[in-house]
Amino acid sequence: MARMEFNVFAKACPSRPTLEHVTGRWGSLTLGALVDGPLRFNELRRRVDGVSEKMLSQTLHALERDGLVHRDAQPTNPPRVDYTLTPLGRETAERLLSLIHLLEERMPDVLAAQQEYDAR
Amino acid sequence: MARMEFNVFAKACPSRPTLEHVTGRWGSLTLGALVDGPLRFNELRRRVDGVSEKMLSQTLHALERDGLVHRDAQPTNPPRVDYTLTPLGRETAERLLSLIHLLEERMPDVLAAQQEYDAR
Repeated sequence: MARMEFNVFAKACPSRPTLEHVTGRWGSLTLGALVDGPLRFNELRRRVDGVSEKMLSQTLHALERDGLVHRDAQPTNPPRVDYTLTPLGRETAERLLSLIHLLEERMPDVLAAQQEYDAR
Repeated sequence: MARMEFNVFAKACPSRPTLEHVTGRWGSLTLGALVDGPLRFNELRRRVDGVSEKMLSQTLHALERDGLVHRDAQPTNPPRVDYTLTPLGRETAERLLSLIHLLEERMPDVLAAQQEYDAR
């Protein structure tokens, strides 16, 4: 089978929607939150401050469909559902967190640049 | 001066809009496109396949305000404007590309997961 080449810069490449799920407003924070271990829906909702129930649910479905998040439903009463990262989800989340940590560390520079820009 | 702590998980943290500029649909592709060197507006527009003139312009302004992209206007006739990454923009783009390359490489796994999910 010929090796397929994927390229996010091409409009129709299927890698582009996956990149958007991973880097989207809630996707990035959801993946980042799961790096420390499995979380239940309501735990995730508290960790990803500001997300609505509907948006978190949509985000988790997209990440599950892409094979990045695993939904683990226990047959208990009441049912218990844990969300965990798959191995690919973990690799993805680690690269995302390396980006997030860089930005958090360098926010003083970003705020200084914003002030300078606004003062022009 | 006390060291400020930034945390993208907190709703009101100023790092959150910056993360969104960097990882947004067009921000990520614009930063990624500039890693190979300066580009003019129309060159960028061709490289970031599918972006409109308006969206590219908004994206560049946000990245310039955050201190990630430098706009270099030459006083030639006609005026020539190059966009380049700042040092922080380059560090950011490199971490973003490490994420993008992982996803491009692993798209066969993502597509297999999507097929399996849709067949349920």
